Amino acid sequence: MKKLFAEFFGTYWLVFGGCGSALFAAGIPDLGIGFVGVSLAFGLTVLTMAYAVGHISGGHFNPAVSFGLWAGGRFSAKELLPYIIAQCVGAIAAAGTLFTIASGKAGFMIDNTKAGAFASNGFGTFSPDGYSMQAAFIAEFVLTLFFLLIILGATDKFANGKFAGIAIGLALTLIHLISIPITNTSVNPARSLSQALFVGGEPLSQVWLFWVAPILGAIVAGFIYKNLLQDNSEV
Amino acid sequence: MKKLFAEFFGTYWLVFGGCGSALFAAGIPDLGIGFVGVSLAFGLTVLTMAYAVGHISGGHFNPAVSFGLWAGGRFSAKELLPYIIAQCVGAIAAAGTLFTIASGKAGFMIDNTKAGAFASNGFGTFSPDGYSMQAAFIAEFVLTLFFLLIILGATDKFANGKFAGIAIGLALTLIHLISIPITNTSVNPARSLSQALFVGGEPLSQVWLFWVAPILGAIVAGFIYKNLLQDNSEV
Amino acid sequence: MKKLFAEFFGTYWLVFGGCGSALFAAGIPDLGIGFVGVSLAFGLTVLTMAYAVGHISGGHFNPAVSFGLWAGGRFSAKELLPYIIAQCVGAIAAAGTLFTIASGKAGFMIDNTKAGAFASNGFGTFSPDGYSMQAAFIAEFVLTLFFLLIILGATDKFANGKFAGIAIGLALTLIHLISIPITNTSVNPARSLSQALFVGGEPLSQVWLFWVAPILGAIVAGFIYKNLLQDNSEV
Amino acid sequence: MKKLFAEFFGTYWLVFGGCGSALFAAGIPDLGIGFVGVSLAFGLTVLTMAYAVGHISGGHFNPAVSFGLWAGGRFSAKELLPYIIAQCVGAIAAAGTLFTIASGKAGFMIDNTKAGAFASNGFGTFSPDGYSMQAAFIAEFVLTLFFLLIILGATDKFANGKFAGIAIGLALTLIHLISIPITNTSVNPARSLSQALFVGGEPLSQVWLFWVAPILGAIVAGFIYKNLLQDNSEV
Repeated sequence: MKKLFAEFFGTYWLVFGGCGSALFAAGIPDLGIGFVGVSLAFGLTVLTMAYAVGHISGGHFNPAVSFGLWAGGRFSAKELLPYIIAQCVGAIAAAGTLFTIASGKAGFMIDNTKAGAFASNGFGTFSPDGYSMQAAFIAEFVLTLFFLLIILGATDKFANGKFAGIAIGLALTLIHLISIPITNTSVNPARSLSQALFVGGEPLSQVWLFWVAPILGAIVAGFIYKNLLQDNSEV
Repeated sequence: MKKLFAEFFGTYWLVFGGCGSALFAAGIPDLGIGFVGVSLAFGLTVLTMAYAVGHISGGHFNPAVSFGLWAGGRFSAKELLPYIIAQCVGAIAAAGTLFTIASGKAGFMIDNTKAGAFASNGFGTFSPDGYSMQAAFIAEFVLTLFFLLIILGATDKFANGKFAGIAIGLALTLIHLISIPITNTSVNPARSLSQALFVGGEPLSQVWLFWVAPILGAIVAGFIYKNLLQDNSEV
Repeated sequence: MKKLFAEFFGTYWLVFGGCGSALFAAGIPDLGIGFVGVSLAFGLTVLTMAYAVGHISGGHFNPAVSFGLWAGGRFSAKELLPYIIAQCVGAIAAAGTLFTIASGKAGFMIDNTKAGAFASNGFGTFSPDGYSMQAAFIAEFVLTLFFLLIILGATDKFANGKFAGIAIGLALTLIHLISIPITNTSVNPARSLSQALFVGGEPLSQVWLFWVAPILGAIVAGFIYKNLLQDNSEV
Repeated sequence: MKKLFAEFFGTYWLVFGGCGSALFAAGIPDLGIGFVGVSLAFGLTVLTMAYAVGHISGGHFNPAVSFGLWAGGRFSAKELLPYIIAQCVGAIAAAGTLFTIASGKAGFMIDNTKAGAFASNGFGTFSPDGYSMQAAFIAEFVLTLFFLLIILGATDKFANGKFAGIAIGLALTLIHLISIPITNTSVNPARSLSQALFVGGEPLSQVWLFWVAPILGAIVAGFIYKNLLQDNSEV
């Protein structure tokens, strides 16, 4: 049960911090944090929570990560569903808090005809810089694949594992530096779902891609790591 | 006594570096550091001092942190008051130094009818981007709650504790990335008090929120961590 | 063989992340990541992969690094060629993926008469800020020399080696902060080759400098470190 | 002798990277790195070289640091002069290389009537944002004092010493985030001297402040740390 609380709080923080920085601070004229600040924020949610509760739950905060660790032989199938539920509940709770705070500014409303509304993910017309569905799929697939290679490698028994929280957190920063203009960056189905539920409309109907592409990329990474990179000898 | 000197210097540095970067460098046209730079500065004051004097005093530099550690069972009630006094004295001394340096530029004056004057915190008309008192309260409460969850988790006996200074410092960076537009970011009553004392007027009369919301969030975090997340078995 | 897969994936990630952030995110109006974001992205590709697969292959991801480690007596001559081939194949595969994603935006084309097209390196007319061939050569030589001094020093048997991934990754960030305007920053022949192959024209004919200067700087660093800095006593 | 080479290369890198990023990349329209990028660059020169050659020389790269460590009882008086000479020679050699590269762009010249020319330090008319001599002196004194408190604390026998390179490097980043607009940030007499020698004129005649204030701040820090903060018991 402690594990599920840890995943709940961790995923809450990921959505609150990452999507929150995008909503409140990215677009302020002159002084705003832009995509660099949002990228940093997403990465730091994971870096901070990895050191805070990683010792409790492993620190997934992302259904694709749970799937990838399962495919890599590091996580049991029977824990998949409870972890993913805790992650989605945490993400949705965070989105609700963001909505409440955002409503405290005069004139707030979600315009779900615009790309990236309420920090939602999207492709085609709903891609921040107009990338096609195919490009969005490839980007999410490749980025999640490498995210999982980094997670599996940095937590390998032969690796320098105490630094994994830094490597994994900053990997998420890097992923956002590359791909916010393409899909507003998901690589995390729970994060995509929570924002889409509050936005509705077309962004909600596009949310399938942000479940399929990341989870597929994560599973492929599990197989690549186990078969091409992992040293299976004893420590 | 060494502990109180450590808290004095640490909180001096937090205010001098964090508020100083906001005052001197954030708004320079074209080259200024913006909210990303200020966020980085606040976080680095804590990261640097955590490694410098954390081994002396524990490195709180913030009355809310002292309260949260007390609620989490990691800090004794009888040390609360001396720590908080040392923190407030350090913060006020830093604000005084900032005032002296700022006065060395022709035309310097504090206009306390403007949001964020002299790096002060505020809500409503005194919120940098116009957020209501309720939104400000929720933001400060939630952000301090998670700040303390990270502090309690990263310094848990089962955690990878040597990295706590990095996780906690960068958590403060993250908190600023999210919330400078909402309240100019406090999560630290001493930091809010020191700037408000030099600004006076309405910002000073709003300072209560930046004592109540962070301390409340910190105490709730202490109870959450102790009861839902902490593994109470022996090492 | 695991080593060559590690070099393939690591160099793929370096080019995909570093050049990808430049292509997709650097120039977005107002919110774009600029040279700071691209510098961070390049550094984080190496930091993340160093902790992920450094324990497998040593984490070179760069022919100049392999040459420099050989000159410093840390890498065998017979592994040079396979490593460099794996690096170049990984870089080219990443450039191909970037091309495919970029093609998913309406109106995409590579204009090889402009400096920095498709994140290519160049000098003279093809230097982003108009630096001569001589200046470009000196910059690439000096920067790669210091990159290798840092790599050799941070992985020295007397050094604090677990932090090498952080020092080396952030060294690449620093190198980009200095020199994107000069050559669009190479210090990595594989990264230069992959982009030049897709650009063709004059940038491709300039690619020799981004093999000669970095490899020369790296080899000189190997000799400097071995002869002026290294302590050759036993641990 | 290895120690002096380490100080030479370390200080060369500090000036080449820090001042180089300011000269080449800070002011590029739209994409330039601004003061955030320059601050990051200065800090990363120290972070990278601390892990690369810190095990050889201790990694001072700055006459004020050598003085402060001497005042704190960590460095012998008889090594002061050779260290400072090696640092100044390294800084001047780096400034020479920067001058050569900068000359490779058409129209390059140093206008020594402008604040911050060739990354020089200054006050009054030569302060980037017009701060008086008194303000400049206080800022350089306080910032170097805290820089040394961090160095002395992070390398204390009771501290978490392996992280000192991160804390000290990022302290220099923080110092620049605060004070580039005040003095263009020195806290390092060797860095100030090297740029002033190439600029001449008024900036050269102001260089005394960037020797006196940092060294004074560093010495005061040594006494504060030894007497108020240091635990003098055995490990």
